[in-house]
Amino acid sequence: MQNIKLTLEYDGTNYSGWQIQKNTVYTIQEKLQEALAKINKKPVKVQGASRTDAGVHATGQVANCILDVAIPIERVPVALNRLLPDDIVCKKAEKVGMDFHSRYDSSAKKYRYRIFNKKLPSVFVRNYVYHYIYDINLSLMKQACEYFIGTHDFTSFQASGCAAKNTIKTIESMDIYQRKPEIWLEIKGDGFLYNMVRIIVGTLIELSMGKIQLSDIKNIITARDRSQAGFTAPSQGLTLLEVYY
Amino acid sequence: MQNIKLTLEYDGTNYSGWQIQKNTVYTIQEKLQEALAKINKKPVKVQGASRTDAGVHATGQVANCILDVAIPIERVPVALNRLLPDDIVCKKAEKVGMDFHSRYDSSAKKYRYRIFNKKLPSVFVRNYVYHYIYDINLSLMKQACEYFIGTHDFTSFQASGCAAKNTIKTIESMDIYQRKPEIWLEIKGDGFLYNMVRIIVGTLIELSMGKIQLSDIKNIITARDRSQAGFTAPSQGLTLLEVYY
Repeated sequence: MQNIKLTLEYDGTNYSGWQIQKNTVYTIQEKLQEALAKINKKPVKVQGASRTDAGVHATGQVANCILDVAIPIERVPVALNRLLPDDIVCKKAEKVGMDFHSRYDSSAKKYRYRIFNKKLPSVFVRNYVYHYIYDINLSLMKQACEYFIGTHDFTSFQASGCAAKNTIKTIESMDIYQRKPEIWLEIKGDGFLYNMVRIIVGTLIELSMGKIQLSDIKNIITARDRSQAGFTAPSQGLTLLEVYY
Repeated sequence: MQNIKLTLEYDGTNYSGWQIQKNTVYTIQEKLQEALAKINKKPVKVQGASRTDAGVHATGQVANCILDVAIPIERVPVALNRLLPDDIVCKKAEKVGMDFHSRYDSSAKKYRYRIFNKKLPSVFVRNYVYHYIYDINLSLMKQACEYFIGTHDFTSFQASGCAAKNTIKTIESMDIYQRKPEIWLEIKGDGFLYNMVRIIVGTLIELSMGKIQLSDIKNIITARDRSQAGFTAPSQGLTLLEVYY
């Protein structure tokens, strides 16, 4: 018996997200479990560090699972990639202690949100970006980042109807920069509430539009009220870059 | 009545290529004609500069069509993009003389072929590259380019079973360079035989593998025999970049 830590890349376009759901065939977790069960010759339960939503991508999702078979660890990515669909790739497999848990043990996660800022869409990145055609005030957005960094109660940036036990999270870094014709937001924190990154992006967009003022940001955070923040930016712009331990 | 020159971008992944075929629903030409017919309120015939194959992409395909409606030219891209599927975008529309023909009048075309040269595939570019896991001898490939540049009979680089009237083509430029983890071949010429770029790429790969020697390249060209050249590299790595007039 061995506990295996998997680093995964996936294109979330054709999936209903990470987590197995009733009546939904296509989830990343299910595809992984199906492939791992073939290797293990009995069912396998996979735990993911982040329960990414429908349409959200990953270049560095981490998951772990207990395998009964004595497969050499260096053979795991090759064996898995042969069984997985084209849009899920196992980049790395490591043997870890039996008590390792990909979600509970993670100390931080990093996400990227891509905004494609051009009049015309691009057919090649259409599934990986949020296409926003209006001018963006980048310097205003950059200034807003400072208000999010640090430890705050992020209730205003949690999807309404969700009740996380602990809404206090620490944002270690948050940067926004231009990679023409795109604008990338990169955010690293010890934890994220449901839709938190996407609501932060929507709030920055509304700031850029002038619907929200820079001086409002602090109040929106302290209000602990979802209705004060901006809209939820679309899922396909979001990518989980890395999980830290 | 006006003759319209359209510049088009498309992701060829889900199509059977440019040209309308019997029993094939998904072709770029058909999707365009359907959209244009709605604008024109009667059937429209679209002529494309390049009949790109199934899986081949374009950032700068050019097509033209005669429209009966008096739609202002600057409204055409907006109207078309509203009707076209997400993987086809009209980038530009220009009014041209009634005698303009996108294919017959083109003086040159430029293509790019992308090789993804890494052990692990990338889920995000999987439809736009040829995934080749072995080492590539880039300097050898660069040297080979010199043999292709100029005017030659390219019969050796034409899909077998095809008989183009004129197999003599002029390659104006051919460059190969690294864009880690990819290798890009860019080739510009006055015309290309069926599968010509893909067979040139396959030949360069076989050169890199040592199956073909640099000193063989000249003989392969002069042999005018398809069996002398390398394999046909997969279609999804190919993109039509530009058509010149």
